[in-house]
Amino acid sequence: MEQHRALIDAHVERWITALPDDPLYAPMVYLMRLPAKRVRPGLALLSCELFGGRAEDAMDEALGIELFHNFTLMHDDIMDASPLRRGHPAVHVQWGVNTAILSGDAMLLKAYQLMAGRTKVIGIFGRCALQVCEGQQRDMGFEQRNDVTLAEYTEMIRLKTAVLLSCALQVGAAVADASDEDRARIGAFGEHLGLAFQLRDDVLDAFGDPSKVGKEQGGDLRAGKKTWLLIRGLEREVQEGGTVLREALAMPADQRNVRGMISALETLGVRVEAEAEIERHNETALRSLGSVRATEERKRTLRALAALLLDRTS
Amino acid sequence: MEQHRALIDAHVERWITALPDDPLYAPMVYLMRLPAKRVRPGLALLSCELFGGRAEDAMDEALGIELFHNFTLMHDDIMDASPLRRGHPAVHVQWGVNTAILSGDAMLLKAYQLMAGRTKVIGIFGRCALQVCEGQQRDMGFEQRNDVTLAEYTEMIRLKTAVLLSCALQVGAAVADASDEDRARIGAFGEHLGLAFQLRDDVLDAFGDPSKVGKEQGGDLRAGKKTWLLIRGLEREVQEGGTVLREALAMPADQRNVRGMISALETLGVRVEAEAEIERHNETALRSLGSVRATEERKRTLRALAALLLDRTS
Repeated sequence: MEQHRALIDAHVERWITALPDDPLYAPMVYLMRLPAKRVRPGLALLSCELFGGRAEDAMDEALGIELFHNFTLMHDDIMDASPLRRGHPAVHVQWGVNTAILSGDAMLLKAYQLMAGRTKVIGIFGRCALQVCEGQQRDMGFEQRNDVTLAEYTEMIRLKTAVLLSCALQVGAAVADASDEDRARIGAFGEHLGLAFQLRDDVLDAFGDPSKVGKEQGGDLRAGKKTWLLIRGLEREVQEGGTVLREALAMPADQRNVRGMISALETLGVRVEAEAEIERHNETALRSLGSVRATEERKRTLRALAALLLDRTS
Repeated sequence: MEQHRALIDAHVERWITALPDDPLYAPMVYLMRLPAKRVRPGLALLSCELFGGRAEDAMDEALGIELFHNFTLMHDDIMDASPLRRGHPAVHVQWGVNTAILSGDAMLLKAYQLMAGRTKVIGIFGRCALQVCEGQQRDMGFEQRNDVTLAEYTEMIRLKTAVLLSCALQVGAAVADASDEDRARIGAFGEHLGLAFQLRDDVLDAFGDPSKVGKEQGGDLRAGKKTWLLIRGLEREVQEGGTVLREALAMPADQRNVRGMISALETLGVRVEAEAEIERHNETALRSLGSVRATEERKRTLRALAALLLDRTS
């Protein structure tokens, strides 16, 4: 996987070198050069190899997926008014909102160009990219609502996060000319992996080691963000007759007792439930990977990557 | 041409009906339903017919061009802080900036999906779309500069406006399987038509009948916008030793003597020069159309459309 990351980083640099000398491209270069794990392009390359293709053949598509992912970060950071991205100033802070909008648009176009080599790949990418936008739309809509259900939340993170992991794997499969059935199987692997991945993020926010996670413990709870933990916690509290979470949410964010909320989630059994949910998605993902027609040796790398993504502490 | 507009409007409505029921799509529907001339999709259909294709075969591509054009309006209106679009509230005013960013992104994706039927069309569209972004980037950059040359201005409007007219015509040609040479010729026709079209806009702003143009006479001059007229006027003023324009620009916009600026442009001969420039682009456009291998009868419609676009009073 480290090999793949090096391949991808080299391809990113080649791509940057070929860009026109125009201020439109400076924010893309900045964002694409921030240190990143390259999970999505890595999945595209691994999936291509899983089905007997060469990683080299899927480099453009892998880069396109990473560009698209970074485009969503550039625009999401404007919408969420996030000042930082990967520990550095966000593009809209560094260059202003207008440049962040326009460079993001151009980045999306650049991503699409890289996907245009194969009709099947374009189709997969277009559908997935729209679903990612639908997911972001729902995420923003949830901020105005207090009645978001677990099913709605799960569908939102499926669209916003899981679909792109699935997309990366499906694109790699399409480059390797995998059958439609196998492509659907590896896509389902990615979707459940993505759901588990996002739930792991939610759990780490409340129960992770802040020195490893690198942000305030319970930051999502402080912000009143409707994550799986909070939605399920509020449900369980109604069943148990408790009021800790509800009362904390009624307070202004800076006066909220986040430690009390975390301890209520633990007592209500929500942490255990979330871990079980992650495990459920992980098992579904692995079952789907298992049903793919490919050698065990090649599946092993994807299983190892899944374990890395889900067992992480940061 | 009225027939084509009806075809396009019907196709827009069919497309709207097939959209998912998601708040992401409401701003697109709103913008696409505002009354519009449908110049760009009309050009795509006419170009397809010019090369022996049927208008019906280029409907998706024509719609894709119109969607892309409206996507640029949605995002440009945010960047320019324009409250109105076609006499109605702009999307960012009606739904907020975040929704306008996100719906615009989805609109661009939708446009790309409609162009994905032919590899040649995707290539043309991707290249042109990026040039439109580069044009918008330069336009924004000009606001911070006082030394924009006529050549720079012309290149900016070529990228921002003319390239998309050229794109529409090239896409129509590609759908009809025109040769690369003929596609280049009809593309050049569109590019010079687009340049003349934008210069006509600039002239109408200063010298049009405000009751027909529908906005304040000299609004661009009031805003100190570097149009062809103002850039050339400042050049001529230096040659003549005048100071009217320079002094007016040094004043705050609301104290600017716009009537004096308009009369200075007239006296300096800039209006006559601009009309000559429009005519030069028009002639180059018509020469390029003339060199296309197609029947005179089919070229006649495109010539008539060019005359309509350039002789307009609003």
